[in-house]
Amino acid sequence: MFSQEMARKAAENLRRVREKRPLVHNITNYVVMNYTANALLACGASPVMAHAVEEVEEMVSLAGSLVLNIGTLSLPWIEAMLKAGRRANELHIPVILDPVGAGATRLRTDSAKRLIEYLSIAVIRGNASEILSLTEKESGAGTKGVDSVHTVNQVAETAMILAKEFRTTLAITGAVDLITDGEQTCRVMNGHAMMSSVTGTGCTATVIIGAFLAVCPDPLEAATTGLAYFGLAGERAVVRALGPGSFQMALLDTLHEMTEDDLMEGARIQIQDL
Amino acid sequence: MFSQEMARKAAENLRRVREKRPLVHNITNYVVMNYTANALLACGASPVMAHAVEEVEEMVSLAGSLVLNIGTLSLPWIEAMLKAGRRANELHIPVILDPVGAGATRLRTDSAKRLIEYLSIAVIRGNASEILSLTEKESGAGTKGVDSVHTVNQVAETAMILAKEFRTTLAITGAVDLITDGEQTCRVMNGHAMMSSVTGTGCTATVIIGAFLAVCPDPLEAATTGLAYFGLAGERAVVRALGPGSFQMALLDTLHEMTEDDLMEGARIQIQDL
Amino acid sequence: MFSQEMARKAAENLRRVREKRPLVHNITNYVVMNYTANALLACGASPVMAHAVEEVEEMVSLAGSLVLNIGTLSLPWIEAMLKAGRRANELHIPVILDPVGAGATRLRTDSAKRLIEYLSIAVIRGNASEILSLTEKESGAGTKGVDSVHTVNQVAETAMILAKEFRTTLAITGAVDLITDGEQTCRVMNGHAMMSSVTGTGCTATVIIGAFLAVCPDPLEAATTGLAYFGLAGERAVVRALGPGSFQMALLDTLHEMTEDDLMEGARIQIQDL
Repeated sequence: MFSQEMARKAAENLRRVREKRPLVHNITNYVVMNYTANALLACGASPVMAHAVEEVEEMVSLAGSLVLNIGTLSLPWIEAMLKAGRRANELHIPVILDPVGAGATRLRTDSAKRLIEYLSIAVIRGNASEILSLTEKESGAGTKGVDSVHTVNQVAETAMILAKEFRTTLAITGAVDLITDGEQTCRVMNGHAMMSSVTGTGCTATVIIGAFLAVCPDPLEAATTGLAYFGLAGERAVVRALGPGSFQMALLDTLHEMTEDDLMEGARIQIQDL
Repeated sequence: MFSQEMARKAAENLRRVREKRPLVHNITNYVVMNYTANALLACGASPVMAHAVEEVEEMVSLAGSLVLNIGTLSLPWIEAMLKAGRRANELHIPVILDPVGAGATRLRTDSAKRLIEYLSIAVIRGNASEILSLTEKESGAGTKGVDSVHTVNQVAETAMILAKEFRTTLAITGAVDLITDGEQTCRVMNGHAMMSSVTGTGCTATVIIGAFLAVCPDPLEAATTGLAYFGLAGERAVVRALGPGSFQMALLDTLHEMTEDDLMEGARIQIQDL
Repeated sequence: MFSQEMARKAAENLRRVREKRPLVHNITNYVVMNYTANALLACGASPVMAHAVEEVEEMVSLAGSLVLNIGTLSLPWIEAMLKAGRRANELHIPVILDPVGAGATRLRTDSAKRLIEYLSIAVIRGNASEILSLTEKESGAGTKGVDSVHTVNQVAETAMILAKEFRTTLAITGAVDLITDGEQTCRVMNGHAMMSSVTGTGCTATVIIGAFLAVCPDPLEAATTGLAYFGLAGERAVVRALGPGSFQMALLDTLHEMTEDDLMEGARIQIQDL
């Protein structure tokens, strides 16, 4: 039922991150900066946060991947994202977008669409409501703040169409994660409900995918295996946690200590060919 | 001695937060964003941080309350606060202000006063020195940075006059918390000295009041019961902590796990009619 | 082999920080603000973060020291740093600079050099690559993001020349910390490899030095003893940690609980006269 091949690839990608220690350049929101930097360090990557238009092109040229996250966006930051993204595209450095809160305000929906239109984006990671808001007809479809009001299954079909239209891979996270490039669809069964009781878990999933993208050229595989690793770390952290505070801390510990063998045994990934 | 009626209301308000999961819109400082977002999640609310002038009106219209915090203020953020606050006032969404560091610099004192003048504010939460700095004659009264140099009892009388003048509820936190709308005064005896050894505890008290305001129309009751809940969570977190680091973490756990019965039994609130 | 005299001074400086509770004004990066504020509280100081050009001069005039950190720099923040720094210089309030990522982009290298040129800086704290990038001939010398690619020993000689040229004290942290004012050199053997698995450890070392500078007029002594205290706290935190998450938390606990006697016994400082 679960793909052993993908579990093996997950372990291999984790090994590569730890070996290469790729620099992941983040232009992201204020809320999660500390935590996502620590999550990147915990998985073996090297984070850098830089948003000034005067330096983003130079910084991204040193990086293995670029993470764009609109969680506390403003116009100058969007300009920096476009500038860094274009340079990343020129240099074939993969770009991953997290459209936090798309659908909640026009600024967020429009900014996400603008980034998708002007940049070539390897992976878009969001919850179901955020991803839905990126379709023309669903714009402003009732995202409440930054939390999803849709489930992954409700959007599976739309996601495939959207992935093709945008020429990207969509990673829609929820109780089950759905990853699709419009041709193939993977589902990741790892994870735990406790993960949604901590802020920035979605943003953290995004940076983990960013680290995996820096060492794996296939976006579908990078996103799927990254989410299996992250979800499994979440499951293992829950066991040690008394609540969301200790969970947030334990998650960094489990990301750090997980062996490649742990991941190979624990990854629960389904592949669905069409 | 302690009001059983208010303890019952505290439990009821906590129940409502967990049931309604209100969206709390924060325009706040960089230092505490992650922690206050997590505190809001831990108590059952749904946080969103958004500060761009282009989106704050739209975002606040989705919210149950608006938290304004000047801890790392700059002029564009104050503009966003005014814009969001005016929209909140039009929609009768309660606004809570945290005048962090008022009294330390003219920019902070003036910005706090400007927000109070132009907006209708349900609750102002600050330490004694910050609240004192809002009176005309005490401006620049010697706040040292963001820590209080006055005690709550020293300002009790001034607070009542000020609450009436500003037509607001003042929540002055310290060893004992004093909450007054100029007519009635409540005191909350919950809390622990360890809470002042972690940054942003005051800011966290503010967002908890924000969550309670989103489900309780009476500002005096919302602020009082919110502070009892927060203080009791602090007491319970101290037992598990070895120092400020583990305390900061444990506080999120105890906010999350506290039952309504725990709160009804543990709340220590005094009401003082005039 | 280790200086008992310096160990005694370390304990004495820690005692003074806890007694005087100096206000440390930080203009720093978004990633570490919460953590460095908590580290300052844990060691006994009082942190304030303020970056608006309209208030930095007033804020710094209340402070015992000023920390400038370019980790997520932008032009307006650099202006604020210059303004605050000049006022600090006028008032003889010590300034400490953390040139995060200098060498990685021109903006970072140039901004660090500009701050050094226009301000009198008591201590510059960085990793070996960042410090090397401040020399003319090594500009853009291949810092990869914000992590060092050089060791402390590789730069010891350059550091002495540079310290003299800049009329400052350089604190270069790594497996061994090297502190020099161009005349005398100290080495601190405290610390643990785990410290580099958490983001902002360098920035935290910087603020601890900032707290010590506020109570100790000798920059070489303040930087050396501050780093011994911080390194020893790191060693003690590792024992309690399961990984980087629990380490980050435990470090605040150990900074807080360490007694002056602990520090006197545990400090491992070498002095090297020329």
